[in-house]
Amino acid sequence: MVDRPRIGVVGATGAVGRVTLELLRERGYERVRAFASARSAGTTLEGGLAVEEATPDALRTAEIDVYLFSVGTSASKALVPHAVESGALCVDKSAAFRLTDGIPLVVPEVNGTRAEQNTGIVANPNCCSIPLALVLAPLRDAAGLRRARVATYQSAAGAGAESMERLRREAPEDHDLRMDWDFDGVEFDEETKIREETRKILELPELPISATCVRVPVMIGHAEALWVETEEPLSAEGAEQVLAAAPGVRLDARPTPGKATGLDEVLVGRIRRDPAGPNGLALFFACDNLRKGAALNAIQIAERLLRDRAIA
Amino acid sequence: MVDRPRIGVVGATGAVGRVTLELLRERGYERVRAFASARSAGTTLEGGLAVEEATPDALRTAEIDVYLFSVGTSASKALVPHAVESGALCVDKSAAFRLTDGIPLVVPEVNGTRAEQNTGIVANPNCCSIPLALVLAPLRDAAGLRRARVATYQSAAGAGAESMERLRREAPEDHDLRMDWDFDGVEFDEETKIREETRKILELPELPISATCVRVPVMIGHAEALWVETEEPLSAEGAEQVLAAAPGVRLDARPTPGKATGLDEVLVGRIRRDPAGPNGLALFFACDNLRKGAALNAIQIAERLLRDRAIA
Repeated sequence: MVDRPRIGVVGATGAVGRVTLELLRERGYERVRAFASARSAGTTLEGGLAVEEATPDALRTAEIDVYLFSVGTSASKALVPHAVESGALCVDKSAAFRLTDGIPLVVPEVNGTRAEQNTGIVANPNCCSIPLALVLAPLRDAAGLRRARVATYQSAAGAGAESMERLRREAPEDHDLRMDWDFDGVEFDEETKIREETRKILELPELPISATCVRVPVMIGHAEALWVETEEPLSAEGAEQVLAAAPGVRLDARPTPGKATGLDEVLVGRIRRDPAGPNGLALFFACDNLRKGAALNAIQIAERLLRDRAIA
Repeated sequence: MVDRPRIGVVGATGAVGRVTLELLRERGYERVRAFASARSAGTTLEGGLAVEEATPDALRTAEIDVYLFSVGTSASKALVPHAVESGALCVDKSAAFRLTDGIPLVVPEVNGTRAEQNTGIVANPNCCSIPLALVLAPLRDAAGLRRARVATYQSAAGAGAESMERLRREAPEDHDLRMDWDFDGVEFDEETKIREETRKILELPELPISATCVRVPVMIGHAEALWVETEEPLSAEGAEQVLAAAPGVRLDARPTPGKATGLDEVLVGRIRRDPAGPNGLALFFACDNLRKGAALNAIQIAERLLRDRAIA
């Protein structure tokens, strides 16, 4: 294992970057450096950490063991290759590399071994794909998966710090559902991501998945209503037992984003037969999208690789 | 037609009662009386309308042509029979009589003729069942229905004026999804209502319907994410044409509660193939739950019967 690894957090001043720094402090990492765009460079974060500018040159020469990237997709595309050149492992939270052949897309509890097959980059899935994969993987192992439909209830935090600030300032009468994603003529890019990423993580490239994404006026925490059809019959009680034993999952009768905020696990509940389909189950789950949905999952990927001496 | 009908609004001081009075004013009704519980009786509403106490005796003797009830289920059970005894038509918005054999459960655009078969009571469906029936009925007529799954995004207004006031006072950080319904051990009563009522309105008593109900921190307007499987193939374009021509429905690319508030129609959009199932469609709709989801639908029932001289 790398002794006292040097960690670089890129995008340190964003909503996910701040949670990343908080989690790293909680976990006792001391050799942490913060990088951000020119706009934030030069400022100082809580705890006295100076923000350095994330230039290609700085990342290439910074002598970092692990970079945790939480910047936008175009910034990741521009910066990550330079960080890789330095010999560091890069865990990237953007959509830049998630579906690229040869780059592992990892939820450690589901396909952690895939992380070892990296060539410098491991991609962190979308904040809805991570909890969905955590819930679907044990059901896949227990009974096989035939198809899934999912409606999301995504918080402001998923759209970044500015969206949270807007919700804070908004009059309650103006709260509304939002659909602030790119539309390809059929569905939102967020819906495509959920399908494609979940297929890759679960290694079920043909799994039919239909997602409907909706942003709700909740500050932190995403929830999802899921209907899943299994290959073999699986009772609601059977599914509950399977999920109770699954890593990264905790049962809760009425899971909500509020209850899930600050937790490491996905809260899963409302598990019942889907009276509308054969071998069908309906359930509901909630997850802290900044922690397990983003920052925590990325740190867990890095820790797994550090522990396994897969980087040194 | 009854000339200048005398209308009694029972539960006049609640969230739905107030919208009922507003809609009656907009529509030019002048002989309107307001009834409420002892707590509100004696007060005066905007426009100078005095609130009378809704006692059994008062309702039986008030000489009203149409009562519009928007009180709780137990209050409806206690009061509606007395109002019926007066010879008035009662349109009841509670769950008291919705599933009672012989009592019509009516969405005028879908099964308006059923209203004529009343013996004094017509039931108004649940605020989620009304828009769902408006969307499903034209699809049933075009291609038959095999099964439906629906995830709801229900506003504070659906839980009454107190819930709206709580949302108004709540810090944005405390906004959360809520599941404030009775649980029967398998599902919420709200989810059972949606299935049973939709089956009755559509006259498809066996239609498999699975609903997952969630309250969101939005003031007014309910939305629903629907997956529906038809008997015959129906393309997304075909479904869009069918819905564009359907009464009570208006197409919108990104329907939200905020856009639907104050409108009479259900906004329907995001119509696309459900890649997870054969003959499957996915779509999203939003509706003002106080208007078409409650007050407006009840007034439309009454107007239909007044127009057809079915009451006099």
